[in-house]
Amino acid sequence: MATTRFDVLGIGNAIVDIIGRAREDFLLRHGMQKGAMVLIDEARARSIYAAMGPAIEISGGSAANTIVGVASFGGSAAFIGKVRDDELGRTFGHDIRAAGVAFPTSPAGGGASTGRSYILVTPDGERTMNTYLGAAQELGPDDIDAETVAASAITYLEGYLWDPKNAKDAFLKAAAVAHEAERLVALTLSDAFCVDRWREEFLQLIRGGIVDVTFANESEIKSLYQTADFDTAVAALRRDAALAVVTRSEQGCWIVSRDGTRRVAAFPIERLVDATGAGDLFAAGFLFGLARGVDLATAARLGALAAAEVIQHLGARPETSLEALAQQNGLPA
Amino acid sequence: MATTRFDVLGIGNAIVDIIGRAREDFLLRHGMQKGAMVLIDEARARSIYAAMGPAIEISGGSAANTIVGVASFGGSAAFIGKVRDDELGRTFGHDIRAAGVAFPTSPAGGGASTGRSYILVTPDGERTMNTYLGAAQELGPDDIDAETVAASAITYLEGYLWDPKNAKDAFLKAAAVAHEAERLVALTLSDAFCVDRWREEFLQLIRGGIVDVTFANESEIKSLYQTADFDTAVAALRRDAALAVVTRSEQGCWIVSRDGTRRVAAFPIERLVDATGAGDLFAAGFLFGLARGVDLATAARLGALAAAEVIQHLGARPETSLEALAQQNGLPA
Repeated sequence: MATTRFDVLGIGNAIVDIIGRAREDFLLRHGMQKGAMVLIDEARARSIYAAMGPAIEISGGSAANTIVGVASFGGSAAFIGKVRDDELGRTFGHDIRAAGVAFPTSPAGGGASTGRSYILVTPDGERTMNTYLGAAQELGPDDIDAETVAASAITYLEGYLWDPKNAKDAFLKAAAVAHEAERLVALTLSDAFCVDRWREEFLQLIRGGIVDVTFANESEIKSLYQTADFDTAVAALRRDAALAVVTRSEQGCWIVSRDGTRRVAAFPIERLVDATGAGDLFAAGFLFGLARGVDLATAARLGALAAAEVIQHLGARPETSLEALAQQNGLPA
Repeated sequence: MATTRFDVLGIGNAIVDIIGRAREDFLLRHGMQKGAMVLIDEARARSIYAAMGPAIEISGGSAANTIVGVASFGGSAAFIGKVRDDELGRTFGHDIRAAGVAFPTSPAGGGASTGRSYILVTPDGERTMNTYLGAAQELGPDDIDAETVAASAITYLEGYLWDPKNAKDAFLKAAAVAHEAERLVALTLSDAFCVDRWREEFLQLIRGGIVDVTFANESEIKSLYQTADFDTAVAALRRDAALAVVTRSEQGCWIVSRDGTRRVAAFPIERLVDATGAGDLFAAGFLFGLARGVDLATAARLGALAAAEVIQHLGARPETSLEALAQQNGLPA
């Protein structure tokens, strides 16, 4: 096996979040389904931005958030994703590198602008995402550096990569290189609607052993197995996946493997401010723990800790050192 | 008197804040004085951004923050300030208009890019600001629409306007138009170092009655009167100013007028997260109260309430409705 340079390499859509608060009736008026991520074109992006309230800009992207979380735990981390060489692209690059993450992907010199997600946070802390992929569409197999993949203990991929036209080829190339190098491949199902778009392909990835670890939340596994019953979905997942972790908000998470199913409690919080990034940061803690060889329950506790931090403020990236937070809570970091 | 269209019109530097967390040693290494606002050129802006950690972008600018606060209280508000027609300029324009503020200033079509302030927040919640004025330098008397000024109960100006080359002419034009229309003119001293740069001119504005209401914090009035003693500075201010309000962090504020001096308590907070905007939002509450004709102590309580909201999260603009917050706390709004 090659020397391990990175605990976790993430591959995903490079996105800057534009986050504003909105009331429920705003979502209704603009035909948005609360809690979902939908893909939008540039015209829709303009009209949503014109209608929405004051916003803040924070670098985002699901896998990118996860990777920043891994770095915040003190893990070594890298990210592959496509921006354009514009203002927002430079912001994305600054923020991920400033978090200590290696980001080798060259920006696109032309074409669509850097991807953005217009995120509306309702008073209940739930987020509704409208994503214009922009330059993220340009990610392709050429952006996957085999050496980086082979040098990463875990390669983590987001289900959202199935949406841009060439990214799934990048995804499959990375998974093949990782397995060739005897590394782990992890996948997040990303979003229930994303699962609905790519159900059969996701099932093939899981059943075919192309991914070793699957992350999902309750609505995503219900969508995957087209059932309204959580236990039915978990049982199906247990048959299909080598290892999976299913998050269920304040009810904690279910570690699902062929050996059985085990629940780990959520971390208590004072106030839910913005649920954006909860799943991303859960994955950060779990992957960091896995890469460092802790047991699965401890890895899940690291995930729960990181998720609790990120939902108590606006934005999907940690505002405090997760390494320090883990130490304060008697967890390995 | 013309019909009142706006409770408060603000005139100031249009700035987007780029806010990141930093440890004390970062400030030392980069030669920054904690709590100060210093002006930087583009090269220094690039080097600070390259060195600082992950950041979030939020529209800022001292007077602009105040005006957004007035609108959040339910006041009618307008802002005059200069951006460029670039990405950051569009963000600034979106955010202030989305907050319900009239923003008639046309953006510069060329020249320097939209102004930015690189703000480092240390673990104690204090902020250190490095401001590249950029397009804000282009504000001049032609940007002052006399009708808007005459239709505003209060015209509020920031001391920082003394830094760009033509803005002081804009400032003086606005003050003259306001007084001609029998309106009030308010000024914030902005920053102790800004006072140091423009001490004599600020004293002339206050003593000469060009401003009717002066906002300052403790370090600013100490700088104004070049004394280390707070009471000495307050006594001097009482001789010079028709009406002034001096904020003193958790000790509350001092309302200073020729009739005497009165202290109003600060609003209790749970946790100081980021002091950015404390003074700006205090001014918002006080000006809103003044425009609506409440007594000075009640106006100060509105200011204290708004300041307490803004220092409990990152960024210098309110995240919740100040109108609702005032109602919850039994204050007029």
